[in-house]
Amino acid sequence: MMQTPLTMTQMMKRAELYFPKKQVISRTASGIHRFTYKQIAERTKRLADSLTKLGIEKGDKVGTLAWNHHRHLEAYFAIPCMNAVLHTINIRLSPQHISYIINHAEDKVLLVDPDILPLLEKCGSELKTVKAFIVMTDDNELPETTLSPVYHYEKLLTEANPNYHFPENINENDPAGMCYTSATTGNPKGVIYTHRGIVLHSLALGLADGGGISERDIAMPVVPMFHVNAWGIPFAGVWFGSTLVLPGPYFTPKLLAELIETEKVTITAGVPTIWLGLLKELESGSWDMGSLRAVLCGGSAAPKGMIKTFEQKYNIPFKHAYGMTETSPLALISTLKSYQEELDPEEKLELRSKQGTLVPGLEMKIVGKDGEVAWDGKEMGELCLRGPWIASKYYKDERTLDAFHDGWLHTGDVVSIDEEGFVKIVDRTKDLIKSGGEWISSVDLENALMAHEAVFEAAVVAVPHDQWQERPFACVVLKETFKGKTTKGELLDFLKPQFAKWWIPDDILFLEEIPKTSVGKFLKRTLREQVQKEVHK
Amino acid sequence: MMQTPLTMTQMMKRAELYFPKKQVISRTASGIHRFTYKQIAERTKRLADSLTKLGIEKGDKVGTLAWNHHRHLEAYFAIPCMNAVLHTINIRLSPQHISYIINHAEDKVLLVDPDILPLLEKCGSELKTVKAFIVMTDDNELPETTLSPVYHYEKLLTEANPNYHFPENINENDPAGMCYTSATTGNPKGVIYTHRGIVLHSLALGLADGGGISERDIAMPVVPMFHVNAWGIPFAGVWFGSTLVLPGPYFTPKLLAELIETEKVTITAGVPTIWLGLLKELESGSWDMGSLRAVLCGGSAAPKGMIKTFEQKYNIPFKHAYGMTETSPLALISTLKSYQEELDPEEKLELRSKQGTLVPGLEMKIVGKDGEVAWDGKEMGELCLRGPWIASKYYKDERTLDAFHDGWLHTGDVVSIDEEGFVKIVDRTKDLIKSGGEWISSVDLENALMAHEAVFEAAVVAVPHDQWQERPFACVVLKETFKGKTTKGELLDFLKPQFAKWWIPDDILFLEEIPKTSVGKFLKRTLREQVQKEVHK
Repeated sequence: MMQTPLTMTQMMKRAELYFPKKQVISRTASGIHRFTYKQIAERTKRLADSLTKLGIEKGDKVGTLAWNHHRHLEAYFAIPCMNAVLHTINIRLSPQHISYIINHAEDKVLLVDPDILPLLEKCGSELKTVKAFIVMTDDNELPETTLSPVYHYEKLLTEANPNYHFPENINENDPAGMCYTSATTGNPKGVIYTHRGIVLHSLALGLADGGGISERDIAMPVVPMFHVNAWGIPFAGVWFGSTLVLPGPYFTPKLLAELIETEKVTITAGVPTIWLGLLKELESGSWDMGSLRAVLCGGSAAPKGMIKTFEQKYNIPFKHAYGMTETSPLALISTLKSYQEELDPEEKLELRSKQGTLVPGLEMKIVGKDGEVAWDGKEMGELCLRGPWIASKYYKDERTLDAFHDGWLHTGDVVSIDEEGFVKIVDRTKDLIKSGGEWISSVDLENALMAHEAVFEAAVVAVPHDQWQERPFACVVLKETFKGKTTKGELLDFLKPQFAKWWIPDDILFLEEIPKTSVGKFLKRTLREQVQKEVHK
Repeated sequence: MMQTPLTMTQMMKRAELYFPKKQVISRTASGIHRFTYKQIAERTKRLADSLTKLGIEKGDKVGTLAWNHHRHLEAYFAIPCMNAVLHTINIRLSPQHISYIINHAEDKVLLVDPDILPLLEKCGSELKTVKAFIVMTDDNELPETTLSPVYHYEKLLTEANPNYHFPENINENDPAGMCYTSATTGNPKGVIYTHRGIVLHSLALGLADGGGISERDIAMPVVPMFHVNAWGIPFAGVWFGSTLVLPGPYFTPKLLAELIETEKVTITAGVPTIWLGLLKELESGSWDMGSLRAVLCGGSAAPKGMIKTFEQKYNIPFKHAYGMTETSPLALISTLKSYQEELDPEEKLELRSKQGTLVPGLEMKIVGKDGEVAWDGKEMGELCLRGPWIASKYYKDERTLDAFHDGWLHTGDVVSIDEEGFVKIVDRTKDLIKSGGEWISSVDLENALMAHEAVFEAAVVAVPHDQWQERPFACVVLKETFKGKTTKGELLDFLKPQFAKWWIPDDILFLEEIPKTSVGKFLKRTLREQVQKEVHK
């Protein structure tokens, strides 16, 4: 067979050749913009030419601090296809962490949205390697800024060569992108994505049994393009010629519902918090969601009640998935097997609330105290993954050995696996509650609480206990209409028939909000501290 | 990213782990057999152990002379996964060619169906490298044979280790399979398939925009497993957990219809001749074909009239595809773009009768007299392909340079490409008719003739001509009920409004049958000789 490398160059080229009329629908501060792939492909070449003129060479890192929009999409292709490295920066991190990762990655140029400039200015004098800032603004003039030198994205493109030629000698193992993931303690850790990894991951997203992304799709990644490449949807979408809908900055659930209805979105993706918001909107408005063939949900476990409402009340197919920065991210997806379609609705719901089965192309093992666990849906062990789109290390980071050893990624997620190979995340290794030598799953308790009609969100954490080492403690945010009405006792009584006696939380704390990480996951460490204070009052 | 190799080992492993209950339905001389993937996986390990005991080592070639059935499927995985090479032998070749390719490949062991033994016996003393013959029979006893030493497939498996471990150190560029393709003159030419090529080709078959093969499919490859790996369907089907239906030896159109109806086949694949036969059967019987989501058709161009009957009369989705032994084979597939679904039925039929657009992962160029042709549906040029599942050479063969140069496979097929990127095979470079310095497409004339209600098959060839160098001459097989009724004049009048005057064939010869190659393509060379004799009568 020919030794043709698996590189991203073919992706935008295919959209340009085969789908020049198809559209990218992009929302920015000034409204909705529509570009054809013919236009996007040309703009991508112009951006690569501009970056070349600014001195970007093979292997150089170019950072982006941007929402989901067409200019960010252009960066997604221009940078890797010129054999440089697309470094998407999580703008929800602290200025200290942002400075750290820009310096650690040695970004040479930064592409930044105008509303994110103030955040970047806070990093200003800390940045050691950045030679140029490019502002991705809709305005004709650059905003005032203390950063320098600053360039205007559109003006650079106007002056650039529309016939720029991407290099043809890219090695498939060359870095194409990078992303930093928050660590429990210390600075964020970087992961490098190669061309080969991104191409293979995109194929998995296109498999009928994977994401099924195709030319027919109108795909709206709500998950930010600074989170694990918006789960790879922009790559697969462009390659396969899907229409892309990029919802831009500061969207509301109402705006998402509007985009789904008017653009006839067929597939969308985001974290559970987004879908909780959308459900609220669907309850209050009258929306047509009939175009949706899949709502992909990952990032943290989706409560069963939410899946049930999507599927049974609104008839919207819900696809639970699992991944992390280290896994590109798609690793598990909860597609039912053909013969499972005949199960009754509750059994199907049970399966759909699990994270799913392994995507073709990867390998998995689940390691408990005594080796690999049984496929019984009960035994718990740590999920380990291996495969061509799984990271092999953290970028220049001594913490690599925490997660990568014996040729496997040790995810830190505690899971069980049932007879059919459906994996269920039980907890983070660090978040399990150990009571009297036995494990209690905080996630199971959270899901049960969130299935109660009065509960908007719930998080369960461990508190130290003299006799039992640790005991579970629940933090609950009630829905507006239930505040001041629903009591702790009611919620605990609701849990009792569902769990062993010793699993029932010792107490419940009502909160206005659950503190969350920048990627929308519960910030259990902060929550534990908050609960500690409460217990010792 | 991890340097996990793309090897076939993961395919059967995935079927065993995730789809142990799903079935392979296999028809052999003794009837229909049903095996679960759990059983097939174990039998695959036993076969690998048996071959190891017979001395098969890394890189050794093991040949198969067999129909589509479960034992052939076991060989499909046992041989590559033990790091040996699966050599599928086209049993429709002459004994001379079969001897040549077995010797050229240096096959060490041959797996053979009992009814193919007599053919192999004719090669007997010519075979220089074969150390053992294994007969894949349903009977308890081996048939009488002059070959030696001969082993009984089932007895070997009974005695073998069911826990054989496949090696884990396979390099993705190691050869996994090989297949010889007929040459216009001389001996067949061999193509090597690597693990990487087969894995990537299988992903293309699983893409929603490729073959869309998934766990939900009940896939029946009618195309023989000795033709380009039955177009890769057994590999993709096992990997993704599809139910496989293997129709065995000597099937009739009626048997195929029966299998589709009773096993609820969702996707099937074969050459046009097969589907012409099935259509005949559908016309005479009352069959339920409602389970079919796709009839994949390749090998040679499908007549438009046939596609129309499938789609419009029987409501069976027809997918035209293009490939060759050198391309693994999937290269083009005629999936309509979303916005083309709104065209009127005749325009859609026109698109579906083309070979389609390029599958993601490959590159294409079409080279005419003055460089790459325009995308206008008219200009003709030779189709050239490049990509990770395109062969780079013929195995130990000096004819490599005929087809492989400048980094491209030159297919020898003359095509046009329209504004939307749909490729249409116009002819083989060797079969084009050159009349007065202009090209006439024999395929266009054949398709037009086959659209006539009286015509069962038609082939058009060039005959030398004093004035015009070459002129077209048509050979027609009439349907039974039209024989002796339909005249040459009627058929020529039927063509006249559809083509330029100089395209109309000079004469028509009525035949009982069009001579075909072993893979069901028109044998134009033989036909030309036949026509020559006719002209000089």
